[in-house]
Formats: sequence, structure tokens, C-alpha cells
Amino acid sequence: MSMDIRRLSERKRHGQELAADELREVVAAYTAGDIGDAPMAAWLMAVCCEGMTEAEAWALTEAMTDSGERLDLSGLSRPTVDKHSTGGVGDKVTLVAGPIAAACGACVAKMSGRGLGHTGGTIDKLETIPGLSTQVAPDDFMAQAERVGLVVAAQSMALAPADGKMYALRDATGTVDSPALIASSIMSKKLAAGADAIVLDVTVGSGAFMRERVEALSLAELMVSIGRRAGRCVGALLTDMDQPLGEAVGNAIEVEEAVRALRGLGPRDVHEVSVAVAAWMLVAARIAADEASGRAMAEEAIASGAALDALREMVQAQGGDVAALDRPMLGHESAELGRWGASEAGWVTCLDARGVGYAALAAGAGRRRKTDEVDPAAGVRLLRKVGDCVEPGDILAEVTARSHERLIAAFEELDRAYQIGNERPELGPLVLDIITPSAEVAP
Amino acid sequence: MSMDIRRLSERKRHGQELAADELREVVAAYTAGDIGDAPMAAWLMAVCCEGMTEAEAWALTEAMTDSGERLDLSGLSRPTVDKHSTGGVGDKVTLVAGPIAAACGACVAKMSGRGLGHTGGTIDKLETIPGLSTQVAPDDFMAQAERVGLVVAAQSMALAPADGKMYALRDATGTVDSPALIASSIMSKKLAAGADAIVLDVTVGSGAFMRERVEALSLAELMVSIGRRAGRCVGALLTDMDQPLGEAVGNAIEVEEAVRALRGLGPRDVHEVSVAVAAWMLVAARIAADEASGRAMAEEAIASGAALDALREMVQAQGGDVAALDRPMLGHESAELGRWGASEAGWVTCLDARGVGYAALAAGAGRRRKTDEVDPAAGVRLLRKVGDCVEPGDILAEVTARSHERLIAAFEELDRAYQIGNERPELGPLVLDIITPSAEVAP
Repeated sequence: MSMDIRRLSERKRHGQELAADELREVVAAYTAGDIGDAPMAAWLMAVCCEGMTEAEAWALTEAMTDSGERLDLSGLSRPTVDKHSTGGVGDKVTLVAGPIAAACGACVAKMSGRGLGHTGGTIDKLETIPGLSTQVAPDDFMAQAERVGLVVAAQSMALAPADGKMYALRDATGTVDSPALIASSIMSKKLAAGADAIVLDVTVGSGAFMRERVEALSLAELMVSIGRRAGRCVGALLTDMDQPLGEAVGNAIEVEEAVRALRGLGPRDVHEVSVAVAAWMLVAARIAADEASGRAMAEEAIASGAALDALREMVQAQGGDVAALDRPMLGHESAELGRWGASEAGWVTCLDARGVGYAALAAGAGRRRKTDEVDPAAGVRLLRKVGDCVEPGDILAEVTARSHERLIAAFEELDRAYQIGNERPELGPLVLDIITPSAEVAP
Repeated sequence: MSMDIRRLSERKRHGQELAADELREVVAAYTAGDIGDAPMAAWLMAVCCEGMTEAEAWALTEAMTDSGERLDLSGLSRPTVDKHSTGGVGDKVTLVAGPIAAACGACVAKMSGRGLGHTGGTIDKLETIPGLSTQVAPDDFMAQAERVGLVVAAQSMALAPADGKMYALRDATGTVDSPALIASSIMSKKLAAGADAIVLDVTVGSGAFMRERVEALSLAELMVSIGRRAGRCVGALLTDMDQPLGEAVGNAIEVEEAVRALRGLGPRDVHEVSVAVAAWMLVAARIAADEASGRAMAEEAIASGAALDALREMVQAQGGDVAALDRPMLGHESAELGRWGASEAGWVTCLDARGVGYAALAAGAGRRRKTDEVDPAAGVRLLRKVGDCVEPGDILAEVTARSHERLIAAFEELDRAYQIGNERPELGPLVLDIITPSAEVAP
């Protein structure tokens, strides 16, 4: 071992800034197996405790990006734009905003992840479309990007492999929760994936990584700064994740809701966040001049059916059954359907997003471990959300699952997630903050 | 794995206090192999960064003590007293103060460690006495403690085994330097070793763990508090380790100097620190009423030859050649003797203890790795120390080593360790602070 990571851990824990060369060496040596898991875990914890400067986070990201291949999207004729959500419950925005942006002339050629714990993943959702493959060979990926303007594939192991190894260690050692480590993990994959423009959807609230708006904003600013230093046009939205987005939480059920949203018939919050994200994607891709014209283009793409057509084209190109998009639950059937009712009168004052995520997980829609399989038909449909008035006996939510035991387990989580009170709650905005897309590095 | 240490790491890093039960479970699960090295290293780093309360450090120490056997010294007729130094360069105080305390009626039945890095270890020094064994069987240990009142054996693996495993991990992961972890490591072994009274010699300066007086005092207070909570009579001295103690740094050469000190002919600093430590050991053991009478007893034990006799008896009881104590370097011979001279005139303004430790290490007196063997005859003799006046050509130090290369390497370290200046430096006190021995837990 040529480098002594212990010295870097000691310097970090005493508040010193590490040099770009040193961070590059840590990433290279750990990826090569020259630094063991235990000293690396100690170093990661020192970073969690002491933080990183923006320069350090940027150097770490660059080193992680350089640990693998970089996709070259420069040969595509349309402007390329990527989006990333820091994760949530019922978050189907990629499935709505992606087709909108493609329909408006952008190229959305992106890699997505699978769900873990209480959060869902776009890849799991897409794979509920019968026949659809998310394992897209590089040549096919580029050809579809050019022809359709929309392709969503499973995260390639060849991009930022250092992140894969580091994330597994962070997950095993309680060192996940650090802005610099979260930002470098996300941005190394985004930079390797090659898009010129990137819009980040940073979720805030009980269902998100970041519970507080102030820490979410600082994470967003850090990611934006890293992306701009890499020469990309980057912006961010802070969106509310205190309660789930939309009514559907699961896999097939969320695709169904996304299709409804693309028809202009989706829940108000899904529509609002998706249109906002799509508008800023169009601004970042320099297709729309400003947010207002981006929004107008997005609304028009929904109204004309062009956005839904873009999704259909993508599904077909990736081998999926397009007709399934018109069927309830994409044609999936579940053994059990349970209804969860209110036992008291009042207003729904809180609908804890994380708790609903746990309910969907209990129903079979998620993964406790990476190796678990998800049940496409399992999920939760929220019939009442925060601000709704309820009477005893009203149905608050429906759960679909493979077994009665899973229904009961999901009900127990819902029991903790719903709070009914006597006072009508105030509803806050869905989009809490915006960092306007730009390629300019702040001075 | 029944416990999730990641949750404890996250809570610790957010500044929360962990419960005694939780700390007990961490120590038990790690010792049993139910917690892996990587999550344990992350937890240790969270402790390094965020610190521990006194209650946490005490609970951790107790859990580590309970991981193995506890020596029962209660059957001995004399009051038992232990001493511990946090490590230094040229620190032969155990070899002087131990015999003094034994000669004055205390029972000093102790375990010591080996040297590592720039610091020496009492066991390495004792083993340069031909024939002497530091592997003492439990029955022999107790019999010698009762008959001679002085026995120094190598640290038993049966005492506080959790510390052995945790220390190896800390050493490998850059998580050594934490007051709570240092205190629990030292005190778990001291508590398991069973003495009623304990005097801690906490070194301060370039050759010590603690560079600053304020941090050394806080470490001393923490260790004293832990020992008192365990019902022992504990006190501490803060002693200077900016320059090495005495003139001799090595193994046989330090035993030789200890014997000289026991004859009343040793360097002033060795005499002063050893008499102070011995005096407080006698107070802690309730043999002397106060420091002044402890000092008087110690001086008398040296003057009468009783202290040297105690060392001789111990050496004989452990199979050592008593006659070797009267020979230069205990009869060891070295292939090479080199003299290091001054090239300029002035005063020695600094003699960096750590640097001299590295010089002795380069000469062959120490270990870079735990598995290295030490050369009994290798070492450094400091002919000039801080405050001495020098002329060009004066010999500052002599080095003995097995080869010419080792001499040269030691000279290079000495070149960095000695600083000659134009102004006569002020000499500070050797004993910087005292925590009077007591068994009373502070409110």
C-alpha cells in the first residue's frame, strides 16, 4: 500500500482540507483494493463528521467519475438533458417529465436505479411493463436516444464503479448521511452519463434523505456547483416529500398514474412537480428561454398527446408491450386487495411519506435487501391525503399484496403514517426552492 | 447480528450520548466477531470525532475490563499499587519507582507492554537482563508478589482481550488519538490487573501522545475518574516529555541508567520524576501520609540500597542474572559505536523527544511493526541536553548499533532532533501537574 489513508483520516478529523491529488489517490487505491474496508470506513466517517469543502467534494466526484467509463453523447443531434431525484415515495416524475422533455425536442438518455428500503426506483417501475428491458446495449442506447429522444436504462456498472463499491461500504457502516458523500455519489454517475444539462430534484421531508429544507438546499447547491465545475448546465428544484407524491405508491400502480398524468388526468401534485421539472429541463437544454415558456411547452406536450406518444415510443423501442399502458395496473393482478378505513372524524393532518414507503415495502413493492425481488402488483393507493376531511368508515387507502399477512403488515404501517386531527392543516408549496440552470461556476 | 452498530454510529456522530448497555453490547459483539472491522472502524472514528462523556468512557472501560479475566490481588498481605505511563522516550521510571515503592512496603505486581514506534516498553528493557523471563505463570506471579513485593510481567492476553482487538483495529484505521479510547484502553487493563491503588504518569510534549498540557490534563482527569468509579485509589502526575527523560534511550542502556538512579547516581531528571512517582505511589497505597513523607521514604530507600536490593530480588526471582546489573550495557556489546558532534556553537534549545525516539528506532532499539525484534545493545546516549552549552566539535550524543547504515540513519534523526541556538533556553518543571490520589468519585 503506497498511501497511508490513516494520515488522511487523522488530518480530516482535525478539520484539515485534503488535496485533490490525495482524494484521487484514496478513490483509486480503494477501488483497486489497496485500501481495506476498515480504514476506508474510518475515513468515510471522518468525512461524515467533519464535512468537506466544495473543492474537496468536487475533487472526490471527479476521481469517482474517472474510475470508469464516460458515455459520449456528443454525437446526438438534439440537446441532451438528464434529471435526477434524490429519492422519495410515489416519485414517478421521471416517467412524466422525461417524455414531456423528449416530446419538446430534448434528448433524455438516462440511467436510473432500483428501489431500496422505503424509496422506489424508476427501473423497478419500468420493468412492470411486460416485455420491457432496461438492459440496453450501448449501441442500442445511442440509436434509441437519437431516434426516439428518450431512453431509460439500468445504471451501468461500467460508469463510476468506485461509487458502487463506496456506496456498499457506506450502507454497511452507517456513513451514508453526508452531503459531500451523497453529492459525489450522485454527481459522479451523472457526469459519467454524459448529458450536457442536468436538473436535480432534491426532495425534502420525512420521505427524503434530507428532512430539513436548509440541509436540502445546501446539498442542492453543492451538487449544482460540482456539475458546473464539470462544465455542465445544472439547476435544481427543492420539492416537498413530507407526504408521498400522488396517490399511487408501488411499481405498476405508479406507471399507471404516470400514464394518467401524461393524459392530463393525474393528481394535481404529480402534474405540478412534473411540469416544473420538465420546464426547467427545457430551460437547461436551451430549448425554452425561461420557465414560463418551458411550462407552456410542457402543458402543450401533454394536451397534444405528444408526451404520451414519446413514452409509448420508448416502451416499444425497449421491447415493451405498449397496449399494457392502457390497462389498469398494466394488467398485473394481485391476490389480495385490502381497504384501510378511518376510525375517527377530522382532517388528515399528516401522511408520513416514509411510513407510506414502509407500507408499500411491507406489501411487497420494495426491497429490504438489494437481492430481494419486487412484486409488480403490490402497492398502496392513497385515497385521502393531507388536508382531506374524513368521517369514521371512510376508506383512506387501498393496499394490494400477494398475501393477507402482507396486507396486515402494510395496514400497521399506514396506521402509523396517517394522523387525523381536529384542525384543518395548512398546505405548503410543492416546489420549495429553485436554483436556475446555468453553466457558470459561482465566483 | 442482533445489534445494528450503524445506528449507534449515526447517533454518536450527531452528538448523542450512548447508553452503558449499548456500549457493553458493542464491545461484546465486536470481541465475539458479530460486528465486522469496517462498521467498528466507522464507529471508532465517530467516537474520535465527537468524543465521549465521562459516563460513556467509564461504561466502555467497564465493558472492556469484563471481556476477560480479572486478577485477584486481595490475598496479598501488602497494599498493592500499580503505575502506568502513557509512554515516552527514555522513560525508565517503572524500573526505578517500582523498586523504591516495593522497598518501602508496597506490593508492585504489574503487567507492562512492549515498545512500538518511537516509544519504548518496559518489557523490552527488562528482557535485556540475561536469563530474565517476563512470561510469569499466575501462581509464580502471586508468589513473587507476596515474597518480593515486586514483579513485572508481560501483559497477559487473558486480561481485557477486547482492548487487544480494538487497539489493533485503531492502529490500522487512524483512530488511536481519542482521549476516551486511550483512557478506556489503559484503564481496562489496569482495572483487570487488580491493584487497589494506581498512579498514572501522563506524559506531555513532543515524545508523548499528548502534545499539549491542557489535553494531557483532561486525559489524566478522565482516567482518574474511571479508576475511582471502579473503586480504586487513583492519582496522576503530568510529566514533561518534550525532551527524552535521562541520558539513555534504548533497552539495556536504559536498565543500566535505572540501576545508576537506584544507586543515587542517575541523571537529575530521572531521579526527580522517579522519586515523585514513587512518593505518590506510597501515598496512594496509604503507606505514606503525604507527598513529603513519601519523598523522604523514597530518598531513604535509594540511600540505603534497599530499592536496588528490591530490583535485584525481582531479577533473581524471574530467572535473571543479577551480576549483569553491574556491567556496562548489562554486558551487551554492539558492533558499531558512533559519535555525533556539534557543528556550531550555542545552546541546545530543543531536543525533540520524538526525534530521539526515531533515532533509537533507526539504531535498532525499537519496533516499526509489532513483529520486529529489538536489538538489546542498540541505543542513544545523550551527552548534551536542552540548556547545555556547546562548541563546534563537542560530542552531543553517542549511538550504538549493529551496522554502519543504522548509525547513519540514527544520525540523520538526531540532526533533526537537536536544535542549537544563540539564546539560553528556559527550563520548565519536570512535573507539570498533580492529581492527588484518592478513591473518592468527584460529585
